[in-house]
Amino acid sequence: MSSLLVDRIGELVTNVADSGTGGPLGIRRNVALLVEAGRVVWIGPARDAPAADHRIDAEGAAVLPGFVDSHAHLVFAGDRAVEFAARMAGRPYTGGGIRTTVGATRAAGDDELRATVRRLRAEALRQGTTTIEIKSGYGLTVADEVRSLRIAGEVTGDTTFLGAHVVPTEYADRPDDYVGLVCGPMLRAAAPYARWIDVFCERGAFDADHARAILTCGQAAGLGVRLHANQLGPGPGVRLGVELGAASVDHCTHLTDADVDALASTAGPDRTGTTTVATLLPGAEFSTRSPYPDARRLLDAGITVALATDCNPGSSYTSSMPFCVALAVREMGMTPAEAVWAATAGGARALRRTDVGVLRPGARADLMILDAPSHLHLAYRPGVPLVRQVLHDGVPR
Amino acid sequence: MSSLLVDRIGELVTNVADSGTGGPLGIRRNVALLVEAGRVVWIGPARDAPAADHRIDAEGAAVLPGFVDSHAHLVFAGDRAVEFAARMAGRPYTGGGIRTTVGATRAAGDDELRATVRRLRAEALRQGTTTIEIKSGYGLTVADEVRSLRIAGEVTGDTTFLGAHVVPTEYADRPDDYVGLVCGPMLRAAAPYARWIDVFCERGAFDADHARAILTCGQAAGLGVRLHANQLGPGPGVRLGVELGAASVDHCTHLTDADVDALASTAGPDRTGTTTVATLLPGAEFSTRSPYPDARRLLDAGITVALATDCNPGSSYTSSMPFCVALAVREMGMTPAEAVWAATAGGARALRRTDVGVLRPGARADLMILDAPSHLHLAYRPGVPLVRQVLHDGVPR
Ligand SMILES: [Zn+2]
Ligand SMILES: [Zn+2]
Repeated sequence: MSSLLVDRIGELVTNVADSGTGGPLGIRRNVALLVEAGRVVWIGPARDAPAADHRIDAEGAAVLPGFVDSHAHLVFAGDRAVEFAARMAGRPYTGGGIRTTVGATRAAGDDELRATVRRLRAEALRQGTTTIEIKSGYGLTVADEVRSLRIAGEVTGDTTFLGAHVVPTEYADRPDDYVGLVCGPMLRAAAPYARWIDVFCERGAFDADHARAILTCGQAAGLGVRLHANQLGPGPGVRLGVELGAASVDHCTHLTDADVDALASTAGPDRTGTTTVATLLPGAEFSTRSPYPDARRLLDAGITVALATDCNPGSSYTSSMPFCVALAVREMGMTPAEAVWAATAGGARALRRTDVGVLRPGARADLMILDAPSHLHLAYRPGVPLVRQVLHDGVPR
Repeated sequence: MSSLLVDRIGELVTNVADSGTGGPLGIRRNVALLVEAGRVVWIGPARDAPAADHRIDAEGAAVLPGFVDSHAHLVFAGDRAVEFAARMAGRPYTGGGIRTTVGATRAAGDDELRATVRRLRAEALRQGTTTIEIKSGYGLTVADEVRSLRIAGEVTGDTTFLGAHVVPTEYADRPDDYVGLVCGPMLRAAAPYARWIDVFCERGAFDADHARAILTCGQAAGLGVRLHANQLGPGPGVRLGVELGAASVDHCTHLTDADVDALASTAGPDRTGTTTVATLLPGAEFSTRSPYPDARRLLDAGITVALATDCNPGSSYTSSMPFCVALAVREMGMTPAEAVWAATAGGARALRRTDVGVLRPGARADLMILDAPSHLHLAYRPGVPLVRQVLHDGVPR
């Protein structure tokens, strides 16, 4: 069994809060980290480092857990660059453009979809994303949703069935029938390929009754619940998510006090594994020129916050978690440490995973070495590709 | 003499407005481009491409002129990540932190400064920046300003003497004496190493009388004029720049109608080479959480706009021109095409250079191949490292 020592780490973000020295990020300085069989097996002072078959010299740089991007839509065809440019010239984002991508996705062959997923997955990995959730939702037929999930499953275990992304054109005048399809034949066919179920609960997409019906069916089929909620305006999504024990409610741009209270009621150290995380997607506000969610309000209420990209060709075509960290600090009232935590440990909580988003013995050896001495640089040096090297399952990429 | 053909270009941004098909960016589709001796020698339909010794297949991607970053402060030591984090927690940016970097820079050896300049220059090049202006301004003694310019001159011809960045601590109670030093011995020693002279004309730095004195001396010594102006509040800087025929006034965040009129009076096709460009530096507003300049107002007045990074360890530690393009579109009312032009041709105008920022026979073969089919993706895919390959002086980097 081959071992790998990451040596001369200047600053190690462990996200183990009780590791003593370094706040919620559990920062340790001047340490080394040993990897065997894809797992972290030892962390300690560099001078005590055990012998290893291979060695990476971090040269004093910062080392962080790999990013956990808990919200991405990578299975699609076509792009909407022209729609984006028109929006920047003044046309608001309504979500209607999703149907454009549905048309292109249905028309595409498997190989084209697979190539796009792999290209974007590789692009994200180069930027430090070692765990990624991928949703269906641009197929919206039984066959197209299943193949979307099948292709997503080739690159991640965190696949999400989002048949309820939007009501497709052919069901425009009979949405109840579409909900019936999603809850019935589509879910039956999709469930074997999915870990999660998700609904776009928003004016113009699915209302609370439809969302509850779909998510409840998904739970009965063994899927975990997550939700697109409160992106474009206030609505019932966040409270519905809490009611159903969702792992995460995503966007959270427009929240009432009741929404915040509902999320806060799920938080706390005794609630590990049953907390509903608020996942914020600032790339969407950036690319739709919308007001940003108020992360400070959520954090001050004790709510667990995650950051994710929402990578999709319509409203947020970024795969960059460092960009989301920088936006969260500039626009959403997060400190650099809170943003880094939300993009790593927060994402892991949103996926209810304990093996990633943290660096301690037993955790997956998913990590990145920065071209920088501190995690602060991810916000301090916005736009700069700062990820020098990534280890995924202990393997240098 | 070795030749290189860049073949199968899907979209070529030439910035030659009269090339017929594609607006101010002079976009041509499905072409090839031939390079010899560091220059573009031919552009035409791929099927007519001449034979060449080497070939790069652009595979249908977009090819653009390399970015021209006309405003960067790369000669310094230390970083101010902790100051940045404190500012994000609520402390405003006053410019006072410049003195922190002056202390660290004076204490650093030449090799340390050189290593930082080269590291940041390489980092910028990887992101598509083929031309970069570099300022002194963290030495503020005769010897330290000269060595800053000498080291900057090792990586660029566009060196700028910024002895008047801030009044150093040892002159705090006698600023007139410092202006005398800058205009006299410091300028005499620095001028052989500089192409430009610059002053930080702002409350807390240098007022209009001091700035005029320094810039006039610089002109007499053969240097071109540029100016930091109207960043932190309204002031005389922009009008002073126009009065002195500055190539560029930089920041332009707080402008009166009179400022806009002054800039507009220098614009127009008959003014090529004598126009005063408004160079906008959105990285600074991003990293100081300040209101952005209104690019739309300037463009609508017919003023030539450039985008640059202001890369420096205090107020804008980004080297990323793609990030500036994305911000300009999101925050400053520019279209993607306007932002791309400003980051390439606009920067060239701000440096009064006709050999870069444009792709036509005779121009420098400074260009980038994107991981994308269109220039739109630089704004459409914010934060993503989209520059696949760079040619600098015709050489792949
Ligand atoms: Zn989404
Ligand atoms: Zn500057």
